[in-house]
Amino acid sequence: MSSSFGQWLKLSIFGQSHGPAVGVTLDGFPAGMAIDTEALALELARRAPGQNAMTTARKESDTPEFLSGVFNGRTTGQPLCAVIRSEHQRSGDYGDSVDLVRPGHADYTGHVRYFGFEDFRGGGSFSGRLTAPIVLAGALCAQWLRAQGVTIVSHALSVADVRDEVLPEACPDGETLRRLKAMPLPALRPEAADRMSEAILAAKAEGDSVGGTVELAAWGLPAGLGAPFFDSAESVLSHLFFSIPGVKAVAFGDGFGFAALRGSEANDPFRMEPETGRVVTATNHSGGINGGITNGMPLRATLAIRPTPSIAKPQQTVSLQRMENAELAIRGRHDPCILPRVCPVAEAMCAIGLMELWKERAACVK
Amino acid sequence: MSSSFGQWLKLSIFGQSHGPAVGVTLDGFPAGMAIDTEALALELARRAPGQNAMTTARKESDTPEFLSGVFNGRTTGQPLCAVIRSEHQRSGDYGDSVDLVRPGHADYTGHVRYFGFEDFRGGGSFSGRLTAPIVLAGALCAQWLRAQGVTIVSHALSVADVRDEVLPEACPDGETLRRLKAMPLPALRPEAADRMSEAILAAKAEGDSVGGTVELAAWGLPAGLGAPFFDSAESVLSHLFFSIPGVKAVAFGDGFGFAALRGSEANDPFRMEPETGRVVTATNHSGGINGGITNGMPLRATLAIRPTPSIAKPQQTVSLQRMENAELAIRGRHDPCILPRVCPVAEAMCAIGLMELWKERAACVK
Amino acid sequence: MSSSFGQWLKLSIFGQSHGPAVGVTLDGFPAGMAIDTEALALELARRAPGQNAMTTARKESDTPEFLSGVFNGRTTGQPLCAVIRSEHQRSGDYGDSVDLVRPGHADYTGHVRYFGFEDFRGGGSFSGRLTAPIVLAGALCAQWLRAQGVTIVSHALSVADVRDEVLPEACPDGETLRRLKAMPLPALRPEAADRMSEAILAAKAEGDSVGGTVELAAWGLPAGLGAPFFDSAESVLSHLFFSIPGVKAVAFGDGFGFAALRGSEANDPFRMEPETGRVVTATNHSGGINGGITNGMPLRATLAIRPTPSIAKPQQTVSLQRMENAELAIRGRHDPCILPRVCPVAEAMCAIGLMELWKERAACVK
Amino acid sequence: MSSSFGQWLKLSIFGQSHGPAVGVTLDGFPAGMAIDTEALALELARRAPGQNAMTTARKESDTPEFLSGVFNGRTTGQPLCAVIRSEHQRSGDYGDSVDLVRPGHADYTGHVRYFGFEDFRGGGSFSGRLTAPIVLAGALCAQWLRAQGVTIVSHALSVADVRDEVLPEACPDGETLRRLKAMPLPALRPEAADRMSEAILAAKAEGDSVGGTVELAAWGLPAGLGAPFFDSAESVLSHLFFSIPGVKAVAFGDGFGFAALRGSEANDPFRMEPETGRVVTATNHSGGINGGITNGMPLRATLAIRPTPSIAKPQQTVSLQRMENAELAIRGRHDPCILPRVCPVAEAMCAIGLMELWKERAACVK
Repeated sequence: MSSSFGQWLKLSIFGQSHGPAVGVTLDGFPAGMAIDTEALALELARRAPGQNAMTTARKESDTPEFLSGVFNGRTTGQPLCAVIRSEHQRSGDYGDSVDLVRPGHADYTGHVRYFGFEDFRGGGSFSGRLTAPIVLAGALCAQWLRAQGVTIVSHALSVADVRDEVLPEACPDGETLRRLKAMPLPALRPEAADRMSEAILAAKAEGDSVGGTVELAAWGLPAGLGAPFFDSAESVLSHLFFSIPGVKAVAFGDGFGFAALRGSEANDPFRMEPETGRVVTATNHSGGINGGITNGMPLRATLAIRPTPSIAKPQQTVSLQRMENAELAIRGRHDPCILPRVCPVAEAMCAIGLMELWKERAACVK
Repeated sequence: MSSSFGQWLKLSIFGQSHGPAVGVTLDGFPAGMAIDTEALALELARRAPGQNAMTTARKESDTPEFLSGVFNGRTTGQPLCAVIRSEHQRSGDYGDSVDLVRPGHADYTGHVRYFGFEDFRGGGSFSGRLTAPIVLAGALCAQWLRAQGVTIVSHALSVADVRDEVLPEACPDGETLRRLKAMPLPALRPEAADRMSEAILAAKAEGDSVGGTVELAAWGLPAGLGAPFFDSAESVLSHLFFSIPGVKAVAFGDGFGFAALRGSEANDPFRMEPETGRVVTATNHSGGINGGITNGMPLRATLAIRPTPSIAKPQQTVSLQRMENAELAIRGRHDPCILPRVCPVAEAMCAIGLMELWKERAACVK
Repeated sequence: MSSSFGQWLKLSIFGQSHGPAVGVTLDGFPAGMAIDTEALALELARRAPGQNAMTTARKESDTPEFLSGVFNGRTTGQPLCAVIRSEHQRSGDYGDSVDLVRPGHADYTGHVRYFGFEDFRGGGSFSGRLTAPIVLAGALCAQWLRAQGVTIVSHALSVADVRDEVLPEACPDGETLRRLKAMPLPALRPEAADRMSEAILAAKAEGDSVGGTVELAAWGLPAGLGAPFFDSAESVLSHLFFSIPGVKAVAFGDGFGFAALRGSEANDPFRMEPETGRVVTATNHSGGINGGITNGMPLRATLAIRPTPSIAKPQQTVSLQRMENAELAIRGRHDPCILPRVCPVAEAMCAIGLMELWKERAACVK
Repeated sequence: MSSSFGQWLKLSIFGQSHGPAVGVTLDGFPAGMAIDTEALALELARRAPGQNAMTTARKESDTPEFLSGVFNGRTTGQPLCAVIRSEHQRSGDYGDSVDLVRPGHADYTGHVRYFGFEDFRGGGSFSGRLTAPIVLAGALCAQWLRAQGVTIVSHALSVADVRDEVLPEACPDGETLRRLKAMPLPALRPEAADRMSEAILAAKAEGDSVGGTVELAAWGLPAGLGAPFFDSAESVLSHLFFSIPGVKAVAFGDGFGFAALRGSEANDPFRMEPETGRVVTATNHSGGINGGITNGMPLRATLAIRPTPSIAKPQQTVSLQRMENAELAIRGRHDPCILPRVCPVAEAMCAIGLMELWKERAACVK
C-alpha cells in the first residue's frame, strides 16, 4: 500500500511521475462548500516546478479536472475525485527495469518493495509530482477551515546556513499572508529570502543541492482537537508531514529545545483572557497542543528538509542489472533545493490533518 | 477516540490512571510464538515506577494476566488481550470534576475534549500508566522480531545538558544490550549516566524537572518495509513515537542536521557488500530509510522528551470551577525526569510499528 | 484478525470459550451517558445459557466489570473496556491439539487458519461465549439510541416449522416490549412460543437440533443514516449480523420476496404525513432503507439461523491427528436451538451498527 | 462517506451518473500481474447498458484508462487508478435541486443525507453507473484469483416466476463458462433464459419491471480464508453484495432453507478425499464456509434483486420543493430488470471480497 490516509476524511492519491495523470480521491469532505478555484490555482502554482531559477525548468500547468463530488460549483459531500493531467511526459529513454539506483532516492528500496515491477521512470510513485494532488486536497481542506476561522501559514525558517526569523505569536495580517504566498521562497524577512536564494544558486553552480527547515503555524483552532495516545494531534500531523518526500524531522512547539529546559520553564501557565473569558496560556512552548489535544493557542511545527538527492555531481552507487559498483551522474534539471515547493505541501498536509481531527471531534456526539 | 492503532496489527489500549486495570488488545499478532515471560517481565519492570530516586515512589508490580490469545504458552493468532491490575488505587480525595488544571498536562484539553465527563483523577486516560500495556504489546512484538533477527536498542542520548555518545554503527553485543536494559538510566558511557542522574536529582531538589533526548536504533531489518507517502516507515513510526506522552520532536537519521548539509554530503552512496553480495550504503545519514522504505541499514531515530510537567514549584493556572486565575502547587511524588521510563516505551512503539510494516509487507502477495 | 469492527465506533472483542474471561473494548462511545446497569444485566441474562430446558445447563453469571471508560456511573468518551469472568472453566480433558473436528463447526477451518496453534477447547475464539461481550457493547449502544428515541425489537419469527406473526408496523407498546424481553423464546403470539418450545424439545429428545428465523425491527430512526455503496445501512448491518455464529442469510424489508414482485408493487410511494409535515412512505417493502440510507420508516430485517451443529447423534468426520475418517458422538449439554439466545445478540449487533452509522453521519459536518 | 472499502485491499470508487467520468482506485493490488485487457473488456461489456431489448438503450463504450499502477502491461503493486469517461452526458433539463423524488430510489434519502447539495441528476452518486468501476476492479481481482485456480460464476437463478436450475457441485467446464458470460441473461437452461426474457419484456410492455435472484459460486478456494466474527467470509462478502444497488437479501449455502432443517441434516460430514488426501465435506449445505472461514468446498451465495424502481407507470410521491403530495411519471428508457447487469457486478464484488480475505490471510505471518 502507499497512498491512503485517514479514517474520518479518507484520502487516496494516485499517479506516477511519467504516467498520464496524478489525482486524488477525498471521501468524507463536507457538503456545500463553494470552491474558490482561484485560491486553488494559486496553491497548485506555488507547488509547480518551473517558476524560477531555483526550481526545475519543467513547466506543468497543473489544472485540476473534478471528475466527481462537485455540483453547481459546490462540494456535494460525496466522494470527490480530481485529476491533473501530465502534459510533458517523456517516456523515451528508459529501459524495462531500473539499473543505476540514485543515492538518497527510493530507486533501490522501491525495487525491493515492488519486486521489480515498479514504474521507476522519474521516481514513479515516489515522485514529488504526487504532491500536486496532495496540495489540491489540502487546499480544499484549507478553504473549509478558513471558513471556520483557521489560518495556516508556513515559511522557510532556514536554507543552508541562512535563517529567517520565527513566525510571530499573532496571526500575520492579510497583506503579509498574501506576500508570503506570492514569494517564490517565502520568508518573513525579505533579505533572508535573498540570501537563501543566493545559497541555493551557489550550490546549483557546483552541481550540488541544499536543505533547510520549514516553520508552520495555524491560528484560530478550537481547543479540543485530537485525543490522547494514537490520535494525538502530533501523531496525526507528523504522520502526514513525514509523508512529504524529503522531510526527516518534525518538531512541535519548542521541539528539541525542550531537552534543555526545566519543567518550570517549559510549562505554559494557564490564564483567563480578560476580554474574551477564554482560557489561554501565557507562553506557548508546547505549540498549542497539550496531551495530544489542541488547547486553542497557535499550533506550531517545524520540519527539517533534506537537500535534494538529485545532484549533478558524480556519485557512487550500484548497478542492479549487473549487481556491481558503479558511478552515476544524474543529468537533467532538478531543484537544487525543494524547500520552496515544500511550503505549500506542508500547509496542505496540515490542513488535511486538521480536517481529519475536526471530523473525528464532530463524530463524538454526546 | 484515542486508543486504537494499526491496520494490519490492530492494537487497542484501555484504562485510566486510577481505574481498576489497564490493558491491551492485539488483533492480528502471529500465531505460534512461545512467549518469553521473563523477558516480558523485564520490559515491564524497566517502565514501572518506584525503581530508584529518579522515579516516583509508587510501586506497581505490573504482572500481566493474559485473558485471551495464548494457549499452551504460545500465541494462537487470535485476539490477544492482557490486563495489568492497578494495586495502589487511591481514589479518596478527588471531587466530581477537575478544578485547577496543571500546566503542561492534558487536564484542560481533556476537559474540553470529553465535555467534562472525563476521569480526570491522576491524568485519567492521559496517564503515563497507559504506557504499561504499550510496553507489554511492544515486548511481544519485539520477541517476534527478535526471532527474525531484529534488535531494537535505545538509550538516553542527553538529559538536561549532559550528553551520552551516539549509538555505534554495528549492533552492540549481547553483554552491552543486557547492561543497557539493566541500567535505571541507560547510557553507553557509565559516567554520562552518573552525571545525568546528578542533573535529575539537582532539579528534583529544587522542585523542578528536566527533559532530554532518546536515541533509538534497530538492526537486522530487511529492505522493503514501508511504502511511499502515507505508509512511509517514518510516518508510521513517528505516529507511534508522538503517541508517547512527553515526546515533542522526532528525527530520523541526521534529522535536523540535514538542514545544513549539501546533497553531496547527505546522500548515502550504495555499495555492494563483498562478503554477502548485498546492497548496502557506505554511510547512513538517512537512518536506514529511503523514500519511506527501509533499505536494510540500521534504522535510527531520535526523540525529544519534554521535562515532566508535574513539578513541586508553585505555578500559575486557572480554576475551571470558578473560571478565574489561580495558583497551583502539585503535591505528591512525581518523576523529576521521565526519560528513564520513556526508553522501554520508545522501544515498544518501535517494535509495534515495525510489526505493522512487516505484516503490511507480508500481505503484498505477488 | 477476527475481532475488530467499526471505523467511527471501534469495537474489539476478545476471549475464548475456556479462557479466564471474555470482554470488549469500545473506542469512540459517546461521553456522558449514565449506564443503566439493570437494563444491561437483563440483556446479558437473556443471552446467558442455563435459563431453561431449551438452553444448555451451564450457568454463567455474566457480571461485567468495567476496567475503563466509566466514571461516576457515566461513560467518559474514552476507551471503555469491560470484561466478564468465566467461572465454570473446565479445562481437564483436552489434548494439545484438536482431533475429531465437529461437522458444522469451525474446528477444522480454525485449525487451518491458525496453523494448529488455536485454543480449540470448546470452540475457542469461535465460541458463542464471545457473544456475551457483543451483547454488553450492544446494550450500551441501545441505551444511547433509546435516549434518541430509537427502539430495537426482535423475536423468533419461526422455529423449525412453527411460525410467529410478523412485527406490526407501529412500534409495540412498553408492555409488549417488556414481555418479549422476558420470554425465554420471544414470540408475539404466546401459542407460537409454546409450539416452538415443543419443536425444540422434540428435536432434543432425538439428539438433534432445529433452526429458525429471527425478525428484527428498529423504530424512531432519523432519515439519513448510511451512504451509497460500501457504507450502505444494509452493508454495515449485514456485516454485523453475519458475524453472529449460526446466521446464514440476511434480508431487509421484503428480502427474497422482492424477487417475485413487480416494480409497481415493490416501490413504496412517498407521502406527506399530515400531522407532522414529515415525508413518509405509504408502504414499507424496502424495510426503511432506500439507496443504502435510512428513510425514517421502521428498519426491518430477517435472519436465518442454522440448527445448532452440536448434536448428540453420531456423525461422520475425520481425525486430524490420524488423517482418516472417523465417527464422532458429541457429549455434553448443548442448546438444541440457539435461536432464543440469538435474539439479544441480533439486537446488540443492530444497535452497534446503528451507532456506527450515527457517528459517521455526525462526522459529516457541513 | 460512501465509497471506500477494505483494509488490506483498499478500494475507492468515484463518479456520478452525469459527471465527466467514473473510476476506481485500488491500493494494495499485487504487483506483477499481466492485465488481460480482452477479458477486462468482456466484463465491462457484460455490465454495460444498451445490449438488447432488456437493458436501457443508452450506449456506453466503457473503455478504461489506467492513470496509474500499470507499467509495461503489468500491475506495479502501487496504487492503481482507472477511469471510464462518460460519453453521453445529458445535463440539459435538470434544475438546481431535486423535486419529485422517485419511489424506491435514493432521491429522498440522498437529499437528506447530503443536505441538498447532492448531484441528483440521474441518481448521482447512487447511480448504477458506479458499478462500472466496481466491475473493472473486480475483473482485475478475478484475473489474479484465476491465476491461483479460483473460478467465480453467477447466473440468473430466477426472474419473476421463472426459475433456472441451481449451479452444479463441480465447476462448470470452460465451454459452459464462456457461454454463461456471453449470454445477455445468463442461465444454465437456455429455455429458462428465454422464458425470463419473455417475463421481462411482458413487464416492460406494461410500463413495469421485475426482480429475481442471482446465484453465485466460487471454486478452487483454499481452506482458511476469513476469520471468526467481524472478518467472517460471510460478513465481508455480504458487505460487498449489499453494496450493489437493488440487492435486498443475501444467503450463503442453504440460506433461509437452514431454518427448516435439523442439525443432523444441516451438518456437512467431513471426509478424507482418497485421491488427494484432502479433508472435504460430503455435502455442502454451509456453502463452503464454517465458522466464517472457507473450508475448501465451493463457496455458494444467493442474492435477491428487487425490481427496477424506475417504471413508466405513474406513481405517488412528494414534491420536495413544495413539500406536498404529487404524481410522478418517469420518462426515459430504463432496464425493466437489472438482473442481467447485476451478474457481472456480483462476480466482481465476490472477487474483491475474496482478494481482501486472501491478503488478510497472507498478512498472518507465523
